[in-house]
Amino acid sequence: MKVNVGRKILGANEEYAFKNSRLLAEQKKLCLNVISSPGSGKTTILVRTINDLKGKIKIGVVEGDIQTDIDAERIRATNAPAAQINTNGACHLSAAQVNAALGKLPVANLDLIFIENVGNLVCPSAFELGENGKIVVLSVPEGDDKPAKYPAIFAKSKVLLINKIDLLEPGGQVDFDIERVRADARRLNKSIEILPISAKTGAGMTAWYDWLAKSVKSLS
Amino acid sequence: MKVNVGRKILGANEEYAFKNSRLLAEQKKLCLNVISSPGSGKTTILVRTINDLKGKIKIGVVEGDIQTDIDAERIRATNAPAAQINTNGACHLSAAQVNAALGKLPVANLDLIFIENVGNLVCPSAFELGENGKIVVLSVPEGDDKPAKYPAIFAKSKVLLINKIDLLEPGGQVDFDIERVRADARRLNKSIEILPISAKTGAGMTAWYDWLAKSVKSLS
Repeated sequence: MKVNVGRKILGANEEYAFKNSRLLAEQKKLCLNVISSPGSGKTTILVRTINDLKGKIKIGVVEGDIQTDIDAERIRATNAPAAQINTNGACHLSAAQVNAALGKLPVANLDLIFIENVGNLVCPSAFELGENGKIVVLSVPEGDDKPAKYPAIFAKSKVLLINKIDLLEPGGQVDFDIERVRADARRLNKSIEILPISAKTGAGMTAWYDWLAKSVKSLS
Repeated sequence: MKVNVGRKILGANEEYAFKNSRLLAEQKKLCLNVISSPGSGKTTILVRTINDLKGKIKIGVVEGDIQTDIDAERIRATNAPAAQINTNGACHLSAAQVNAALGKLPVANLDLIFIENVGNLVCPSAFELGENGKIVVLSVPEGDDKPAKYPAIFAKSKVLLINKIDLLEPGGQVDFDIERVRADARRLNKSIEILPISAKTGAGMTAWYDWLAKSVKSLS
């Protein structure tokens, strides 16, 4: 009984994920599902990315949060379009929610749509939204054992952004073995792109922008 | 249909939560369910607490992780008993899992049992495990907007430990408005105890130990 209903819920999600995927493919839009723990810096990464790529890549954002529109307001301050979804307690975005949010964005005028998922390193990894790829963000203060302890999202992502590397500078206050993260992530996912960045200082962001530009271009 | 099955699942969980709660009450043991995002420092807090309270409070730990027994090994290195649960993908501990884990701990010889939940600020808040109270940990690098964005667990917890306050020292590298956190948490939960700590440096830990001692004593 549990299994049957589980299948039905997943089935409904897959149906909407397929709709989203078809809509994005028809319009040749890149869509990336950004997943991490709360507070790893997803919104800060998106804000900096939007600002730095102005005039180069037209970006819109589907903002997922349990409560508040704090994050969508931060995105809109860049003048990029943002559609807020409040899940009201649910621990991940569903493809149906994303479908409704895409309807509120000027998709035809965009090159790239980021979906900022609910802050949760576990549940969002199990729900396809119709995206072209998942981006997992791990921030330095979360610790270097996270790929081993939360393997699913690292196994499924195209890119691992290791954020807040400014905290690794000489005199930095946080212990973090970046080589352990690289090795554990590669063990789970041979083809994952691993990009150390600081969305605060801008360090490493060029490699991320190059990856985005290449990925947008590959669809056109 | 979904609602009915949801009720059944929650019903089964509540049944085990009640069993756990009765077992703990009969033996007058304090049991605290520790909940946070991945990487906020739950295990580091428990390790320091166990070491600092040796000879004063006898502590055992139920360790919840999706994968690995990294955390249980860290607890056992203190010589405290630890029972590891691997949820194999599930995003929270269930009361049935905790019931089985309690059976592996020498409960009669302990004063206090910590349940370290899966790293997730969302899902564990919805599942009672039979504990006497929830402890939410928020670490400074996660940002000061988390009570507003993830309200449920702050509304339900007895104590909020604000960890990694060493990063707030003059010359620290992280922006964080601790008064915003206090105000937002209190708005959700008038009686929540808010304790700023650093499990790394030991700052603020005495107030936490006093709270634990008082809570253990109130059961005996």
